[in-house]
Amino acid sequence: MAEMFFPSVQLAIKPGTIDLTWGQPDPTLLPVEEMRAAADAAMSKYGADALGYGADAGAGPLMHWLAERMGQNEGRMPAADEILITAGISDALDQICTHLTRPGDTVIVEAPTYHLAVRILQDHDLDIVAAPTDAEGLRVDALEGLVSELDSAGKKPKFLYSIPTFHNPTGASLSAARRRALLELAAARNFLIVEDDVYRELGYDAPSPPSLWSSAEDGMLLRMGSFSKSLAPGLRLGWLTGARDTVQKLVRSGLRDSGGGVNHFTAMVVAAFCEAGYFAAQVTSFRAAYRERRDALAAALRAHVPQAEWRVPGGGFFIWGSFPDGRDTTKLKEAAEGRDVTFIPGSRFYVNGKGRSELRLAFSLYSPDELREAARRLGEGAG
Amino acid sequence: MAEMFFPSVQLAIKPGTIDLTWGQPDPTLLPVEEMRAAADAAMSKYGADALGYGADAGAGPLMHWLAERMGQNEGRMPAADEILITAGISDALDQICTHLTRPGDTVIVEAPTYHLAVRILQDHDLDIVAAPTDAEGLRVDALEGLVSELDSAGKKPKFLYSIPTFHNPTGASLSAARRRALLELAAARNFLIVEDDVYRELGYDAPSPPSLWSSAEDGMLLRMGSFSKSLAPGLRLGWLTGARDTVQKLVRSGLRDSGGGVNHFTAMVVAAFCEAGYFAAQVTSFRAAYRERRDALAAALRAHVPQAEWRVPGGGFFIWGSFPDGRDTTKLKEAAEGRDVTFIPGSRFYVNGKGRSELRLAFSLYSPDELREAARRLGEGAG
Repeated sequence: MAEMFFPSVQLAIKPGTIDLTWGQPDPTLLPVEEMRAAADAAMSKYGADALGYGADAGAGPLMHWLAERMGQNEGRMPAADEILITAGISDALDQICTHLTRPGDTVIVEAPTYHLAVRILQDHDLDIVAAPTDAEGLRVDALEGLVSELDSAGKKPKFLYSIPTFHNPTGASLSAARRRALLELAAARNFLIVEDDVYRELGYDAPSPPSLWSSAEDGMLLRMGSFSKSLAPGLRLGWLTGARDTVQKLVRSGLRDSGGGVNHFTAMVVAAFCEAGYFAAQVTSFRAAYRERRDALAAALRAHVPQAEWRVPGGGFFIWGSFPDGRDTTKLKEAAEGRDVTFIPGSRFYVNGKGRSELRLAFSLYSPDELREAARRLGEGAG
Repeated sequence: MAEMFFPSVQLAIKPGTIDLTWGQPDPTLLPVEEMRAAADAAMSKYGADALGYGADAGAGPLMHWLAERMGQNEGRMPAADEILITAGISDALDQICTHLTRPGDTVIVEAPTYHLAVRILQDHDLDIVAAPTDAEGLRVDALEGLVSELDSAGKKPKFLYSIPTFHNPTGASLSAARRRALLELAAARNFLIVEDDVYRELGYDAPSPPSLWSSAEDGMLLRMGSFSKSLAPGLRLGWLTGARDTVQKLVRSGLRDSGGGVNHFTAMVVAAFCEAGYFAAQVTSFRAAYRERRDALAAALRAHVPQAEWRVPGGGFFIWGSFPDGRDTTKLKEAAEGRDVTFIPGSRFYVNGKGRSELRLAFSLYSPDELREAARRLGEGAG
């Protein structure tokens, strides 16, 4: 087998480079020992139940724990038929597309938005249109205009894909007034909201804003949650709460009828992890580490790259920058890579060709010292 | 939370009933202690690499082990770009549909075929047509006629979904001559074969027939493998080998670009499981247990239900029966349930309304004594 090379992990960084591309948890912060203990506990507690075909909606103990946590943290507990275990948000979005859309259907995303969610939508041949955002998140007024325009063209959006909390890539959180307005608009114009809530547990300054799901009426919203950022990405484990009809459509799908619940073994291990109190400890430790990194990078960017405007987020993994002088961040990337630092230019996050002078910097993978060094090099590259 | 009930497992059997419906491994045979040890070993050996986003094609150590095993057992080793880790065969089939088909496309299945695979195809709005089988498996001559008919109607099948080894539901294995003929036909008529190889490790009498993949030319075949029957279903873990273009299309999909390799943590645990030699021991123990069950049920059926013709398989989980007197097995099921035994009538496995006098009996879940009792009750029900 010497001739075959199979890597283990997705992360691929050029040696010596400080790579601010990756919105991934720092591997050195991942709870290896706690996962070992949780796997052991799961085998003791659940035995063969952790190894059989799981219930179609997902592993019972994990759904219990999640529902209780939502009740405590969000003031809303999903009914038993309003929650589903997924293999993470990418899987949830893929399955939503399979079961709610057909090629050529229209979906709305934010501009900018998570670029790899766009790839999943593209794999389903959807017609993707974008609604603008600003520092407060999605511009609901502009969205209303867009929905009207689509309506005039005889197009009804199948859903809006939105990241209202600690947005990827901008870090913005939708204001409370806009959350209300968005839910009202969706109700009035009868479109589904698919809420990407992946960064909920990673708020650094204050309690995270309430999810859209927590105040949405039945039928109009699906909230996608995940353990990828709050525990470990390799688990491929998340959940979906909301619109009962769609949740039950997924529960009764051929995929689950045939294969049972998604990632059942992992879900049972994570149930044991959460029940042992490790989850609460883990997010506390993540928050402290990432807060320090965010603060270090933000301060260093203001010192070393004052030409750009920097948006410092209340949570999540990203600082978003824009150059009022209109410079091309694709060119800046080349200059930066000459100094062994890199990032993703803003245009990558737009489906409509914008973002030329913007950029996303992920601070999750590096120490404060490395982030300061990255900002210094970036400043040199920016000239 | 007392008011919410979340089950853990898919299996739901009426107390007192011997339920021959479920093609599931016996929970009491699942390797709980070995999985505990493997999880521990994986955390020691791989640490945070088992918890990060896995490589898009899947966990490296598991792909290594699989490729080596295929080389030894099948005489063919996949190239590094011809193998992919999946979340099991249901997931693989779902992803193949997402990436290779569009609603209205035609696919061919066997008659009868695995009924829940049909549900996955239906979820993608495919036009499903069926080719007949007999005791030697798929009738390749009839398939040729069907492909010609479709061609005359301007329809090109996107793929043939086939279970050539220890078929579900019939237990039949495609003869060597037909395997050659099928590959030749697919090459001549240029259609893709999607081979469901889930029971490969569960042959009871002799080495399993070689997979179609092992002698297929590049581009014409995708073989779906799984740990669901040979190790444990709750892992939701399998693999895909074959057609390089399609394998790479899946590797480069938005789903994997966003989420990384499928079920990475579980895959790393299973890599440790396999490397420790537990896999070989597990399939040996499964084979011995299921062989005994098959033999017990087959003998008892011949004694107690001589009105039917019984096909005793060389592997897998099912005995297939048919009543030459043409009786309706849906009615027999009612009579059987009055005697606390149940099964799936044959019509459930056909997309073309056939199978009225046929039935599938799964022997994997019960002891030889229980299976003998089931046959006795079935004989009473058959009158």
